[in-house]
Amino acid sequence: MTSNKKLIGVDLGGTTIKFAILTAEGEIQEKWSIRTNILDEGSHIVPDIIDSINHHIDLYKMSKEQFIGIGMGTPGTVDRKAGTVIGAYNLNWKTLQPVKEQIEAGTGLKFALDNDANCAGLGERWKGAGNDGDDVAFITLGTGVGGGLIANRQLLHGVGGAAGEVGHITVEPNNGYLCTCGKRGCLEQYASATGVVHLAQDFAEEYEGNSPLKKMIDDGDEITSKIVFDLAKQNDYLANQVVDKVCYYLGLAVANLSDTLNPEFVVIGGGVSAAGDFLLNRVQKYFEEFAFATVKTSTKLKLAELGNDAGVIGAASLATQFA
Amino acid sequence: MTSNKKLIGVDLGGTTIKFAILTAEGEIQEKWSIRTNILDEGSHIVPDIIDSINHHIDLYKMSKEQFIGIGMGTPGTVDRKAGTVIGAYNLNWKTLQPVKEQIEAGTGLKFALDNDANCAGLGERWKGAGNDGDDVAFITLGTGVGGGLIANRQLLHGVGGAAGEVGHITVEPNNGYLCTCGKRGCLEQYASATGVVHLAQDFAEEYEGNSPLKKMIDDGDEITSKIVFDLAKQNDYLANQVVDKVCYYLGLAVANLSDTLNPEFVVIGGGVSAAGDFLLNRVQKYFEEFAFATVKTSTKLKLAELGNDAGVIGAASLATQFA
Repeated sequence: MTSNKKLIGVDLGGTTIKFAILTAEGEIQEKWSIRTNILDEGSHIVPDIIDSINHHIDLYKMSKEQFIGIGMGTPGTVDRKAGTVIGAYNLNWKTLQPVKEQIEAGTGLKFALDNDANCAGLGERWKGAGNDGDDVAFITLGTGVGGGLIANRQLLHGVGGAAGEVGHITVEPNNGYLCTCGKRGCLEQYASATGVVHLAQDFAEEYEGNSPLKKMIDDGDEITSKIVFDLAKQNDYLANQVVDKVCYYLGLAVANLSDTLNPEFVVIGGGVSAAGDFLLNRVQKYFEEFAFATVKTSTKLKLAELGNDAGVIGAASLATQFA
Repeated sequence: MTSNKKLIGVDLGGTTIKFAILTAEGEIQEKWSIRTNILDEGSHIVPDIIDSINHHIDLYKMSKEQFIGIGMGTPGTVDRKAGTVIGAYNLNWKTLQPVKEQIEAGTGLKFALDNDANCAGLGERWKGAGNDGDDVAFITLGTGVGGGLIANRQLLHGVGGAAGEVGHITVEPNNGYLCTCGKRGCLEQYASATGVVHLAQDFAEEYEGNSPLKKMIDDGDEITSKIVFDLAKQNDYLANQVVDKVCYYLGLAVANLSDTLNPEFVVIGGGVSAAGDFLLNRVQKYFEEFAFATVKTSTKLKLAELGNDAGVIGAASLATQFA
């Protein structure tokens, strides 16, 4: 693509809506964000997006003809063909939202959409740790655990749109933690920020020795995933046990995912991944224990590189189909 | 495709080489097979394939111009672009075999190749239980456990060609059976024909009750996977315990695979699948226990439908790219 036309990427979240104008090659030229107004069943969200895009195109003295189109990542269940979203509870969207129809009418630009984890995966594949590879798996460890899987340069959606639900891979088949999805032993219950805290609380109950983490939990202090990882780095024995268990489950899931897809890169992002190489090296250890020989040598684990920009970059890439 | 031109499919195995001439729509018109001559480091195999194709084209009074091309499935590690195979030990192929170059020169027809499990998966997707779906996972339970995964209508190969190595998904992370691949707890060690027998022997050691299976094992009779399933159908308690464990591991692996790919169908084939619905219904039970809600309702488990023809049909489909 050597066009001088631009892409617009939108990353719709429960707290903020991030926007970017990018070149057709995926370089961010302008970035801004607005607060998400979820009042009145989220009915202000789409009009706010339209106004903000139109306002910024004017502000930068650009014209609609300079744009290839808009791509957006959203929470909830997406119908990509219809361009609709349903069940995005953190946006207060309870009924079907005709997002594509409204945004195309309000901006005069072509519009494509996918879910937020898929968009972050597309972003990391294109301009981040995925190094523009043909086959890249992205796992995000945040409040929950999500994924975006790319094979043969295409996102996997599957027949029901549930491909890439790596947070619900069963990593503990023997009476594992109950998940919000209704089943037990899901990766999300062990490797999300809340999962790490859950494990810490359970391990603390069993632990008899001295440990700053044990003391905090016994004192009723609020524990976060970051605190657990920070204490583990300071050689807190209990915290290290927790981190090791988190990495065991992640390594097992990444290995089984990789025996299935053999991606060039498995990119790990999200808040929990802020623990960096301390996390990655331990996940790598368990990955090597559980992965098939060819996979172990050809699939590389990496930390995400784009941070919060992954969403807008990947979303924008959805619009390259209109070029 | 409405051309009247034909496809040739070849399924190269350690015992026989199967051939078929098919319409461009995948209907088999002629079928034949020859013995695989693995003498002299397998150096007769490719010349035998060339002679057999040329001979049958003459026999059916056809001409080369009536063919779109040839596709072949082979054991070993395939370089699809180069058209070469290495490490197919059941063929005595120890060095790199320039299969594509030789077959194209010997037949004057275009040639494509992939591994045998991928070809069987393509066949079942196209004309079998996969019902021409966009996203189909195929698992074959034979001497080993293999897979062919199709997403967005394309085979998954991954960066090192090891995508679809579902036989090496770790289903028993806690000190599982040692696999020929070097790691422990692989699905293949529990759900292949040899895996079923291994489980039966281990369970028999622990079992104190009466059971025809127990008696056979204690008497030193040779046990097969078929015997175990047949006895389970006759309510042999021990055999049922074995079958239940096999189905537990299969259900877990299929659920995790489906949380990743959300295929329309997971098609189960190979010798062990001859147990039919007796096997499938129990795998379904564990699949439902371990699969994410959306996946549970949208991904369907099915038995393979094409039997031995899956390989030649899928192989032939590789040649549709030349149409």
